[in-house]
Amino acid sequence: MSDCLFCKIVAGDIPSNKIYEDAHLFAFHDINPQAPVHALVIPKRHIETLDDLTEPDRELAGHLLERTTHIARLLGVAEAGYRTMINTRSDGGQEVYHIHVHILGGKRIGPMVCRQSS
Amino acid sequence: MSDCLFCKIVAGDIPSNKIYEDAHLFAFHDINPQAPVHALVIPKRHIETLDDLTEPDRELAGHLLERTTHIARLLGVAEAGYRTMINTRSDGGQEVYHIHVHILGGKRIGPMVCRQSS
Repeated sequence: MSDCLFCKIVAGDIPSNKIYEDAHLFAFHDINPQAPVHALVIPKRHIETLDDLTEPDRELAGHLLERTTHIARLLGVAEAGYRTMINTRSDGGQEVYHIHVHILGGKRIGPMVCRQSS
Repeated sequence: MSDCLFCKIVAGDIPSNKIYEDAHLFAFHDINPQAPVHALVIPKRHIETLDDLTEPDRELAGHLLERTTHIARLLGVAEAGYRTMINTRSDGGQEVYHIHVHILGGKRIGPMVCRQSS
């Protein structure tokens, strides 16, 4: 965990543009936004991938998903709409191995899969 | 709900290629796949959008997210990875107004937002 970028953000060792925090979750603006609104919602506990989320984590997972809708409202994108995304491992395009929910909004996000994906 | 495509699939009134079912959830292959593996996981209960998911639904939301990882394993994409996505309303690209989690895998899914998104 000591090498995890997102654990360092939660700890405040790396600065972030915070949107929301509670006992279990932390949300901040992506530093490399792919849309006018691009936020990340993460559990404070280090869980590497969505595939590592197990049955005892259901309560955390439910909190994560429900609070994501709350954060989308805070960001002002709920009415027009938004896309939420979790990338798991290589084929999913996961870059940081600490579960994070992307919230993308502020424009029509477009196709789910790009034609020229590589 | 009587006009909802996904409620009809859950009820068996419209056929689907089923992957998984339990008391609360139903999963099936998307009829218009955007990747080699493209499945949908839905709550049986009619909830229009992710934005309509409220605090009392946290247990259902946690079950939905945890079972999505299980279904990705059933589909054989967990190790290589996959992308999960929920589209909310217009900007999110939601087409059916009954919450559904997309599971996309079987290849590198590529950029999160396409350059030529419209």
